[in-house]
Amino acid sequence: MRYLLIISYNGRAYNGWQIQDNARTIQGELNHALEIVLHEKVDTVASGRTDAMVSAYMQTVHFETDKKFNNDKLVHSLNGILDKDIRVLSVAETTVHARYSAKKKTYLYKMYISNIDLPLYTDALRISPNLDFKAMKKFITMLKGTNDFAGFKSSGSEVKDNVRTIYKTQLVRDGMYLYFYITGNGFLYKMVRNIVGTMLKLGEGKLDLNELKRNLFNGYKSNYTAKPEYLYLLNVMYD
Amino acid sequence: MRYLLIISYNGRAYNGWQIQDNARTIQGELNHALEIVLHEKVDTVASGRTDAMVSAYMQTVHFETDKKFNNDKLVHSLNGILDKDIRVLSVAETTVHARYSAKKKTYLYKMYISNIDLPLYTDALRISPNLDFKAMKKFITMLKGTNDFAGFKSSGSEVKDNVRTIYKTQLVRDGMYLYFYITGNGFLYKMVRNIVGTMLKLGEGKLDLNELKRNLFNGYKSNYTAKPEYLYLLNVMYD
Repeated sequence: MRYLLIISYNGRAYNGWQIQDNARTIQGELNHALEIVLHEKVDTVASGRTDAMVSAYMQTVHFETDKKFNNDKLVHSLNGILDKDIRVLSVAETTVHARYSAKKKTYLYKMYISNIDLPLYTDALRISPNLDFKAMKKFITMLKGTNDFAGFKSSGSEVKDNVRTIYKTQLVRDGMYLYFYITGNGFLYKMVRNIVGTMLKLGEGKLDLNELKRNLFNGYKSNYTAKPEYLYLLNVMYD
Repeated sequence: MRYLLIISYNGRAYNGWQIQDNARTIQGELNHALEIVLHEKVDTVASGRTDAMVSAYMQTVHFETDKKFNNDKLVHSLNGILDKDIRVLSVAETTVHARYSAKKKTYLYKMYISNIDLPLYTDALRISPNLDFKAMKKFITMLKGTNDFAGFKSSGSEVKDNVRTIYKTQLVRDGMYLYFYITGNGFLYKMVRNIVGTMLKLGEGKLDLNELKRNLFNGYKSNYTAKPEYLYLLNVMYD
C-alpha cells in the first residue's frame, strides 16, 4: 500500500529535505520517526526537495508499507517523535506518486519593506522602500508561460530538461509585507531563489528591464540567488 | 528637551518593559544603550508597561536630555548597541508625555485555528476549529464603551480607577490566523489577556454568554489569562 503524508515544517534548523549523513534533514527525521512507529525502514518520496533552511506550509510525501495502522494514531505517534518544527498534518492511502503526479506547486517568498530591520518580521527578507516595484511587477509577468529556465538554475543539478511552465506569478502587498507567489508545473534547482534574486537586482536598478526581456530565456544567467530562509513551499496540487 | 522614540520589539526573551534588577527587560536594555550614546543616565517613560514576553510592533518612549545629537545618528548608534530583537525606528523632539498624552492604544492578540500545532505559526496561539466563534464575536462587541473593567484586572496592580473606554474590538480571519484587535484609551494590568482568556472560555462553552452579559461589569471576575507571548502592542496614538 502507498500512503500520502501531508507535512509542514520550519526548515531553518535543517539542512534541507534530502537525507544526508552527518546533517539534520527533514527526510532524515521523518524516516527515523516512521521506522520507530512502523517497525520497519521505509523510503519516503517528497513532491520535491527543498533546500537547506527552506520551509513548507504544505509538503507532500509518499511511502509504501504493508503494515496496518490507524491513520490518526500514526499522525499522533509521528508527531510525538518529531521535533515541533516538523508536523505531520494527515496521512491517507493514495494512488499518486508524490513527485511525478504533482501537477502544480506554489512557492511563496516573503519580503518586508523597511529601512530598518524589524524584530517582528524575521520570517521575511527586508527590502528597501526605494526599489522600482513597477519594474519588478513587469518582470514577474514575463515569467509566465512555457520556457527554458536554464538561466535560473544553479549549478549542482543533473536535470537536463530545463523547460518549465509557470502558470501564475503575483506580488502582493500586505501591510509591511510584500509576498511573491509563483505557481508552476515544476521548478529547477534554486529556480525560485534565482527569480527572486533577479527581481530584486532589477528593483535596485542593477539590471535593465528591456535587456532582461530580450535575453530572459535566451542567454540570461542569474548570478543572484535570494536567501533560502524566506522561501516557503505553499502547496502541491494533484489531479 | 524631551524626545520621543518609536521602538519595536520581540518581547519573548525579555521580562517585560519595566526595568528590574537581575532580569533582562526592554527598558533596562534601552536605558543602557542611551547611557552609552548620550554619556549620561536618562529616565525613559513608555506609553505603558508590557508584560514579560509581550511584543510591540510600535511602542512609544520619551526621555529628557540637554545633550545635542543628530537624530539619525542616535537611531543608528542605539541599534548598534541593542540586540536585534529591539529596534529603534525613529527619534524626534516632542512635547507629549509618552504615557499621559497617549489617547488610544491598540493591542493585537494572534491566534490560529488548527487541530495540530503548526511549525510556521509560532507567533500565534493555537485554538480549536470547534470554538463558538459567534458567541466570541458577540462577547467582544459587549466590551465597547466606557465601563468598569475591574473584573479583567489581575492582582498586582495599585491602580484604583478601573474605568476604561474601549473604542473598537474586532475579530479578523486571515487564512489560518484569527486576529483579535482591541483599541481603548488605556488598559488595566493584564486586561487584554483576561479579555482574550474569557473570550476563549466562552468559545469553549465553559461560560454562558447571557450570564456573562449580565455581570460583565458588575461582579464578573476573570480567572482566564491568555498566554503573554501572543500579545502585541500594535500602536499608540496621540493628538
